[in-house]
Amino acid sequence: MRSPKLVIIGGVAAGASAAAKARRCDEQAEIVLFEKGPDISYATCGLPYYLSGVIDNRKKLLVATSSFFKRRFNVDVKTRHEVLRIEPAARQILVRDLANGREFVESYDRLVLAPGATPIIPPIPGVDLPIVHTLKTLEDTDRIFASIQAGRPQHAVIVGAGLIGMEMAENLALTGAHVAVVEFLPQILGFLDREMAELACRHAASKGVDFYLGEKVTAIISRDGGHLVQTDQGRELPADLIIMAVGIRPNIGLAREAGLAIGSTGGIVVDEYMRTSVPDIFAAGDCVESRHVVTDRSMLFPMGSAANKQGRAAGANAMGRRLAVKGFTGTVIVKVFEQTVAKTGLSEREALAEGFPVAVSYLGADHHAGYYPGAREMKIKTVAEQASGRLLGAQIIGEQGVDKRIDVLATAIYNRMDQEELIHLDLAYAPPYSSARDPIIVLGALGQNLKAGDWNPITPAVLHEKIRQGGDFVVIDVRTGRELEKTALIPGAIHIPLDDLRNRLAELEPHREAILYCAVGLRSYIGNRLLAMHGFTDVKSLAGGFGCWTFETEPLTAR
Amino acid sequence: MRSPKLVIIGGVAAGASAAAKARRCDEQAEIVLFEKGPDISYATCGLPYYLSGVIDNRKKLLVATSSFFKRRFNVDVKTRHEVLRIEPAARQILVRDLANGREFVESYDRLVLAPGATPIIPPIPGVDLPIVHTLKTLEDTDRIFASIQAGRPQHAVIVGAGLIGMEMAENLALTGAHVAVVEFLPQILGFLDREMAELACRHAASKGVDFYLGEKVTAIISRDGGHLVQTDQGRELPADLIIMAVGIRPNIGLAREAGLAIGSTGGIVVDEYMRTSVPDIFAAGDCVESRHVVTDRSMLFPMGSAANKQGRAAGANAMGRRLAVKGFTGTVIVKVFEQTVAKTGLSEREALAEGFPVAVSYLGADHHAGYYPGAREMKIKTVAEQASGRLLGAQIIGEQGVDKRIDVLATAIYNRMDQEELIHLDLAYAPPYSSARDPIIVLGALGQNLKAGDWNPITPAVLHEKIRQGGDFVVIDVRTGRELEKTALIPGAIHIPLDDLRNRLAELEPHREAILYCAVGLRSYIGNRLLAMHGFTDVKSLAGGFGCWTFETEPLTAR
Repeated sequence: MRSPKLVIIGGVAAGASAAAKARRCDEQAEIVLFEKGPDISYATCGLPYYLSGVIDNRKKLLVATSSFFKRRFNVDVKTRHEVLRIEPAARQILVRDLANGREFVESYDRLVLAPGATPIIPPIPGVDLPIVHTLKTLEDTDRIFASIQAGRPQHAVIVGAGLIGMEMAENLALTGAHVAVVEFLPQILGFLDREMAELACRHAASKGVDFYLGEKVTAIISRDGGHLVQTDQGRELPADLIIMAVGIRPNIGLAREAGLAIGSTGGIVVDEYMRTSVPDIFAAGDCVESRHVVTDRSMLFPMGSAANKQGRAAGANAMGRRLAVKGFTGTVIVKVFEQTVAKTGLSEREALAEGFPVAVSYLGADHHAGYYPGAREMKIKTVAEQASGRLLGAQIIGEQGVDKRIDVLATAIYNRMDQEELIHLDLAYAPPYSSARDPIIVLGALGQNLKAGDWNPITPAVLHEKIRQGGDFVVIDVRTGRELEKTALIPGAIHIPLDDLRNRLAELEPHREAILYCAVGLRSYIGNRLLAMHGFTDVKSLAGGFGCWTFETEPLTAR
Repeated sequence: MRSPKLVIIGGVAAGASAAAKARRCDEQAEIVLFEKGPDISYATCGLPYYLSGVIDNRKKLLVATSSFFKRRFNVDVKTRHEVLRIEPAARQILVRDLANGREFVESYDRLVLAPGATPIIPPIPGVDLPIVHTLKTLEDTDRIFASIQAGRPQHAVIVGAGLIGMEMAENLALTGAHVAVVEFLPQILGFLDREMAELACRHAASKGVDFYLGEKVTAIISRDGGHLVQTDQGRELPADLIIMAVGIRPNIGLAREAGLAIGSTGGIVVDEYMRTSVPDIFAAGDCVESRHVVTDRSMLFPMGSAANKQGRAAGANAMGRRLAVKGFTGTVIVKVFEQTVAKTGLSEREALAEGFPVAVSYLGADHHAGYYPGAREMKIKTVAEQASGRLLGAQIIGEQGVDKRIDVLATAIYNRMDQEELIHLDLAYAPPYSSARDPIIVLGALGQNLKAGDWNPITPAVLHEKIRQGGDFVVIDVRTGRELEKTALIPGAIHIPLDDLRNRLAELEPHREAILYCAVGLRSYIGNRLLAMHGFTDVKSLAGGFGCWTFETEPLTAR
């Protein structure tokens, strides 16, 4: 049997993975890879860190070269070659050599499409000015790097506070620039729930980054030899470097023209074997739709980790194998200065939009034993399906140990675990790594308590609305007097320290709704149990405690 | 319904957890806790780190006091009270107040037994000398601490290289003492496979700790005003501080006398609700048998994390709840100077002893993106069931990121995942936290390759034996010439760099068994594929590469 000829379009993450895996599946096949840009297989996710000098050498970004691919995998890599058209009926593509403009036809037996995605550039006046950049390719990076070298920017404005926007905020701040971020949503990192995003935003703001949330950039203008970013709030922000980071769009031009099915998300439709709707054409990476394992819906998930898996499967399957990509949990992680922010599964907002009635838990917990030096607190939010307790999602922010817990939770969600089942995990414990009760185990205990009806949490948003509307209930602060000195009471609350509660029951009315809160939620839970067992008929405790309450009352506003 | 009276015996991890949880389940019940020692609820796992000063204040070890338990949980804590006898028929116990010798009877409706475990002291001459210590309680710690303060030990000898032995080796070395470890097994950390233990041992040895493996201490003698530890190899090691860390034994005296069933492991038999064989008596912590979720057998698992879970369940169930403890994956982690060593599930040796035919993988991988500063290599070994691919266990050693990967693998094993299924996990990726292909994902790919027959690994031990016996096969080193300059060839091997292999096939015989190796195993896998597809009929590759080969040829010997 003759080996099929494989042609790959695109050579960064998915395309390069496809080429290497295809060769390992078929030594005889002819494999040709066309890449429009000058480089293949570079570290897209490292680009922001190269701009600040955290990654100190451009060479480190180049994972593999064309000559390496020839030598090791016998793959013919043609960089600076743009594919103009796919002709599925003829099994051929039309290619232009960008070096000389020459066009030629290349035949294929199997085709892997991995053309990636392109940053969205909103159509606003001034967006074509040379100080405006996007960050997706190594060429983009070289341009920004050159402009940083040429004259260190004093004022950088980033439009969009997603992953790239926040990574660029940190890395441009590290170059010494003053950084302002304009985001049209009322929060940063739109995949998070608002209060978790708020924590990340406050941290970045504490590092000197200015945020203008809920604002839209309307124009970029030149004035007095400089430039200004104008917003719909009438603001004018000085800028000598502007990064447009409002999102990316799958490159589907070739696919659509060739008649491949495009999904409602805007990505190429593929099955779990990365097959498109047209025989012998596979697709992988930022250009395709992925399956979300919690919702079972299609989504765009343009992550390097996804591209590598999809490319590997596409390369194997193009050579006759049958490797599945089952989908993604939607796991995201981002460094925001000294904090790490991560999410897996669904946010509360997303879960509600999917029609799940949810139970939400908040937890503040040290990343390792509190008595071992260096313990850092994490804030964790989980979202579970109310009736079953099935874990739907989690969000974590903290300085240390965040990536570990989010990966454990991603593994739990993949395995459709209920939150209460987390308590059965046997996680590694020694004081330098965890607490005798790891935060994950505590989440399991919270799940058990919730299911047993031992704990009746109320979210800050709901309590806030209750207080606004008024009614017959009492709010009880169970923190110590010393703690109270440093903060404030929730308006209208009375103060009974937890350890006095048992002796001061007479001050309370058993049939009046009571809402307890403490600093993070542990003591209010203990108080909740105590009152319930003393015959109090309607006791709740504030999820996340006073720490989360402040998200409701002190939102970060435009500065 | 009258609330039951709960009596708890033992107040460290399991007993204190039981008391606090019992109160949250029943506000009215009388709860009395007897503890033989002077303290309750202290951080057993932190004790070694206090001795070195890493934990700088004894107070930090005291998690909760008796007065706190009274105040918050209305629990009567009686420290320095020894329980002498349990009388199940009468539902009462006999107690001695150690302060005054007074004995009294205490009745109970429900009893939770949490007396812990006691260090084993081998019956060797000299073991009663005052320089010989064990480390289990805070009182033990105070004694060792006092002896360190009194005259900084120059020569510490640790007998036993398990978890406590290795933690003490590090922490005593930090005090400036010269540390020697004598272990009767031929390796340290007996729960690991030998080659993984070897890596940890070499690291500790590089920090100045001397190891005497496969040696037994026969006596501790006094000579010339000092002390010597004598071994069965005729060795005499000077010592002014000796730690006996050869293991612990469950405290089952009370239980046995009261007729409770004791298992073959030596622990108290409990069901998943922590019920002993006698009605209304529960047990938790180091004194009980636990279920291993992989083997479904009973084991002793004296870990703080287990004690907390078991105590919580025992406390709840004593009050009429029904909380299960499903078992443990056998997860263990220990800091060995700058390295972390961890295991979950079964070692290769344990899996073979359980009768599992196994497939073993080795992986060397950076803990985060190699191009991001600070990447550190981990060595990972996995053990899977050969036919099904079910993941049975994993061992990891490295400087960073070990705890994260072992927890993900523990979660995978709990969920009975096959190794190849790991590739479907959606783990958090950004360069500061992981690689685009996280080591866990690569383990999944290895699992797929193994199942597809693309990869035919041979372990160092098997290759070593093959070479010893001789036969018609060729061993091929596919590393680069430059790499070879720094190390050596495996005896009899020929050298063909991977990138030359395709052009030098003529030098090889397609029907002769070929065994490839590289540094860690990736390139030998690629070469394995290449030769197989060129018609070579019997190709294998050395699991773990040259890095693991050296375990066979350069074992750490007594020094």
